[in-house]
Amino acid sequence: MRFFSDNAAPVHPAVLDALAAANTLDTAYDGDRWSAALDRRFAELFETECRVLWVPTGTAANCLALAALCPPYGGVICHREAHIQVDEAGAPEFYTHGAKLLLAEGDGAKLTPAGIAGVLAGIRGDVHQVPAHAVSITNATEYGLIYTPDEVAAIGELARARGLGLHMDGARFANAVAALGCHPADVTWRAGVDALSFGFVKNGGMNAEALVFFRPELAAASLRRRKRAGHLQSKGRYLAAQILAMLDSDLWLANGRAANAGARLLAEAAGTRLVHAVQANEVFLRLTAGEAARLRGAGFDFYDWGVGEARLVISWNQTAADIRPLADAIRAL
Amino acid sequence: MRFFSDNAAPVHPAVLDALAAANTLDTAYDGDRWSAALDRRFAELFETECRVLWVPTGTAANCLALAALCPPYGGVICHREAHIQVDEAGAPEFYTHGAKLLLAEGDGAKLTPAGIAGVLAGIRGDVHQVPAHAVSITNATEYGLIYTPDEVAAIGELARARGLGLHMDGARFANAVAALGCHPADVTWRAGVDALSFGFVKNGGMNAEALVFFRPELAAASLRRRKRAGHLQSKGRYLAAQILAMLDSDLWLANGRAANAGARLLAEAAGTRLVHAVQANEVFLRLTAGEAARLRGAGFDFYDWGVGEARLVISWNQTAADIRPLADAIRAL
Amino acid sequence: MRFFSDNAAPVHPAVLDALAAANTLDTAYDGDRWSAALDRRFAELFETECRVLWVPTGTAANCLALAALCPPYGGVICHREAHIQVDEAGAPEFYTHGAKLLLAEGDGAKLTPAGIAGVLAGIRGDVHQVPAHAVSITNATEYGLIYTPDEVAAIGELARARGLGLHMDGARFANAVAALGCHPADVTWRAGVDALSFGFVKNGGMNAEALVFFRPELAAASLRRRKRAGHLQSKGRYLAAQILAMLDSDLWLANGRAANAGARLLAEAAGTRLVHAVQANEVFLRLTAGEAARLRGAGFDFYDWGVGEARLVISWNQTAADIRPLADAIRAL
Amino acid sequence: MRFFSDNAAPVHPAVLDALAAANTLDTAYDGDRWSAALDRRFAELFETECRVLWVPTGTAANCLALAALCPPYGGVICHREAHIQVDEAGAPEFYTHGAKLLLAEGDGAKLTPAGIAGVLAGIRGDVHQVPAHAVSITNATEYGLIYTPDEVAAIGELARARGLGLHMDGARFANAVAALGCHPADVTWRAGVDALSFGFVKNGGMNAEALVFFRPELAAASLRRRKRAGHLQSKGRYLAAQILAMLDSDLWLANGRAANAGARLLAEAAGTRLVHAVQANEVFLRLTAGEAARLRGAGFDFYDWGVGEARLVISWNQTAADIRPLADAIRAL
Repeated sequence: MRFFSDNAAPVHPAVLDALAAANTLDTAYDGDRWSAALDRRFAELFETECRVLWVPTGTAANCLALAALCPPYGGVICHREAHIQVDEAGAPEFYTHGAKLLLAEGDGAKLTPAGIAGVLAGIRGDVHQVPAHAVSITNATEYGLIYTPDEVAAIGELARARGLGLHMDGARFANAVAALGCHPADVTWRAGVDALSFGFVKNGGMNAEALVFFRPELAAASLRRRKRAGHLQSKGRYLAAQILAMLDSDLWLANGRAANAGARLLAEAAGTRLVHAVQANEVFLRLTAGEAARLRGAGFDFYDWGVGEARLVISWNQTAADIRPLADAIRAL
Repeated sequence: MRFFSDNAAPVHPAVLDALAAANTLDTAYDGDRWSAALDRRFAELFETECRVLWVPTGTAANCLALAALCPPYGGVICHREAHIQVDEAGAPEFYTHGAKLLLAEGDGAKLTPAGIAGVLAGIRGDVHQVPAHAVSITNATEYGLIYTPDEVAAIGELARARGLGLHMDGARFANAVAALGCHPADVTWRAGVDALSFGFVKNGGMNAEALVFFRPELAAASLRRRKRAGHLQSKGRYLAAQILAMLDSDLWLANGRAANAGARLLAEAAGTRLVHAVQANEVFLRLTAGEAARLRGAGFDFYDWGVGEARLVISWNQTAADIRPLADAIRAL
Repeated sequence: MRFFSDNAAPVHPAVLDALAAANTLDTAYDGDRWSAALDRRFAELFETECRVLWVPTGTAANCLALAALCPPYGGVICHREAHIQVDEAGAPEFYTHGAKLLLAEGDGAKLTPAGIAGVLAGIRGDVHQVPAHAVSITNATEYGLIYTPDEVAAIGELARARGLGLHMDGARFANAVAALGCHPADVTWRAGVDALSFGFVKNGGMNAEALVFFRPELAAASLRRRKRAGHLQSKGRYLAAQILAMLDSDLWLANGRAANAGARLLAEAAGTRLVHAVQANEVFLRLTAGEAARLRGAGFDFYDWGVGEARLVISWNQTAADIRPLADAIRAL
Repeated sequence: MRFFSDNAAPVHPAVLDALAAANTLDTAYDGDRWSAALDRRFAELFETECRVLWVPTGTAANCLALAALCPPYGGVICHREAHIQVDEAGAPEFYTHGAKLLLAEGDGAKLTPAGIAGVLAGIRGDVHQVPAHAVSITNATEYGLIYTPDEVAAIGELARARGLGLHMDGARFANAVAALGCHPADVTWRAGVDALSFGFVKNGGMNAEALVFFRPELAAASLRRRKRAGHLQSKGRYLAAQILAMLDSDLWLANGRAANAGARLLAEAAGTRLVHAVQANEVFLRLTAGEAARLRGAGFDFYDWGVGEARLVISWNQTAADIRPLADAIRAL
């Protein structure tokens, strides 16, 4: 059983159905009826006007957002272990034409106003240093922690006060909202978020993410940047249809809840082995090399995460029956 | 009936089936069994070693190829009406970090050795001018014309002699090969092509194109550039599966032939109205505004192409029964 | 005697004197008293508020201006033979991060509103094409022609109406103003110019040009871009001092007039051999290969300019006595 | 008396003389006799073939070197407090098209093989992370420490073993070599350095630095990049002449020794206040706010360097007589 990541899980049947249903001729690019429905559909969900672009990957969504918020000569404050810093191969630098990621600290890859303020305090205002133009936070974080609406709002307030844009990498936004039980607006635009990478791929989609701009004026240039990056698919309706299917009947939330519930099963089994609180669908454990080998020998796959630690991620489609054998095996170590 | 473009046509059922068949857990990114099969599958098709990257759009394929062949301070010779120059929103400049497209002339968007040599002759060797590093040709061209193996080879020879890489934009490569009746190797690497954007989207795919490197050493940096551009999809198996489905039983060729045959029906009807010879699946007609309006009034949609001209493109799924009413209407003008 | 270009002429003694006079400790970068004086000094000259950045080359001035006026996904309309297109090695693409130069035609490298409008008419508004954001004109042009205030104003009006910025490459601005006899404001900001590359190097300076923003709000980002491009010299006072020396007692104008006068001597000698009217300090002649060889044999050096033509440029320090032997030799051909 | 930095000191009279001596017509750009002499002159100095480009700033030299050693998708290992990271406004990212600076630790801004190996160990080889392509060290460091030939050689060996290029930022190379008393080759190419930014501006020059490639094959692309960055001055002879004047009779070394000697005077006075050993011409002191104010009140200017510390830099032209009053004032605190 694989617990490497949720990013390779199968696609939800409703998404496949949506692809089949969209398999008819319509206008190319984003002129089709599915794409055209996105702005309104997300406006309903978020209870505010927004502009939405489909893209196939979280990297594309994140980096288009950063390029919208930061000029080439500026910087984006993010966590030292943020996905955009660690695992996107320099894509932020590519899309922003060389803007700098300005690294802050924080437990579990979580930024705080104090951490952000510390970065800002270290930047002189002269032209020799790179000025911050934006902040990027990940919710849920790379370590499965959740920012609450209040925590985001505190960052949002600081950002606004200092003239910085605020981006949220929501590769696991569904898991975060499912865990919080809040309205999605409360943890985004109402808390000061300007642009959200709303992830669907890890949550049951195939290859469609939504880049949601809560400041609609940011979208125009991003539409051009999307094309310029080769992301304007001519049959865009197959991306829009995936997203709409995930939003229908709140499938995104149901899938997020399911994955979170699976992670809780593991968390209970792990007990004091946990490196971070398990708030979403990721579980970080202390495991000796021998213990890790024993689990693998029993058929469970996962990533080592530094020395003596392991990462296990639960996918939307992994049931309690799938997970319990692993939970039992962890307990039995 | 829509004749705007083949780029928005429905997806072939075999492709949808392939997506469903791939809907199981496998390794993320391009570590899955479908992606892993591509190099060998294309090597069989082309009868030579090659390295293949899936990407979702032709723009991504083209621009990754150009970035592999041309440094930021170099230039790429292409036709003044090449898709990379006219309709990719500056994506070549983005991917190459500002390389210059060096524009050549030629009937029907077709380059010739003489045209390329003319561009080269106009470039001084000093550091004040942008040196050519590559040539990019489109087969079939933007006007539906075909380069024969001999024509490509003549360009390939010039390119090699002058130290230039050679890229082929094959958004409609299937249509070209179907029309030529040649082996795909003859019109590509045997004729000097280093990198081919092998298009499947216009030909029945959903959102997968293959970037084929016939010089395998070009692939390593391109794999990094693909990630950096946000094109490394975590569920890449759904792209690879599409491509494999299109290659199975030469579906790509069958679809290309079908579209070409449809275009011939229109060409016969158009007679002296034709602006360019109809060699693939595009038909350029002389139409007065009144004539165009009459056709549209009868339910046929297409693009105006400059003043007094129109472009009609036949898709893989348009049958003779679909096309004949338009052919008749054109005859009746 | 060399007539290759004015760009390698000696430095005016007043400029050398200014360097010596500045040879004392002062604040680094542009914090010194000379640099600090530039804004006010140019404001007096142009009778309007302006922000001025010294840079060592015209290429740097031009490209910082273009980057201020055009985003990476935009385009700059310029003449097919503009220096920024032909002789700056892709620097505009580097500084703008891949914006496209959109080429217009016009006699003697001179743009017209009609030529610009023609380029604009060829650009669709969709995201597949590169939208124009700016126009760049060269005064005097690369062929030594002059835009009058009315001609610039007509372009400025079109630019404003279409939302385009207007840049003037004034590598030979002194020659243009000297020839026009107008106030420098009339041919720049009063005619709609937003940014001027005010050249001093060809006119007696050593390595200092002034980038003049007539829209002061454009300067802030450009100050950062200048540093980022490695152009913020720590001993900037030696650039500012050069520029101030050239402005003192209108030395720039005197030098421009002197060079123009020399060119007129050649123009009279050339008569019907002239390819372009001689309005500034450049002379383009029809010369057979034999005639060119004869002149060179007599000790006169110059560039061939295509087949059967030659370019001769007069520098600020070439006197009538220097030039007459060449004029006589041309007459004697 | 100003002790802010050596970067704004006056120009050595020999440099001004050289400018005057070069004030004659010669070929433009780097075609003149002074520029043409550089390769050979540096080859003599370094006892190896090298290719040399003049540029006006250390930022330009550094960033051209980095662009020669690292592709856009790669990374450069440098110290967290390296000038290229902290004080060049993102110029490395601009010139490299978005390569990443990979930050290492080390006392006094000095890298060690272990520190570099630690960074390398943290980078996975997959395409999701940015691979290191080069190392950049500063000699003397930003804190005035010196790398010995052995220390550089140890880094050079690691670099070669791992396939990394090695760049040395020698903004204060003269101070380093003067302090080491070694042959300049021993601390550069013989120790594995591929490219050296050889600084002259801080050491008595006006606005000319030398980018020295010890791997000559790196120069060709850099010549194009220099032009493309707007750094190819048309009257380049005035830069080359400065550099040649600094090399004549080892003026660069004499100036470096003089500044170092001045710093030793301060170091002796500072005693236990020193934050770092004083090995070149920079002195970092512990000073309370009150003490700093007292020194300033006495007419001594310098930078605060974090809380409770100050930086004082000695310039080539500051004599013992200039420095003693400050030394005495520090002793008297």
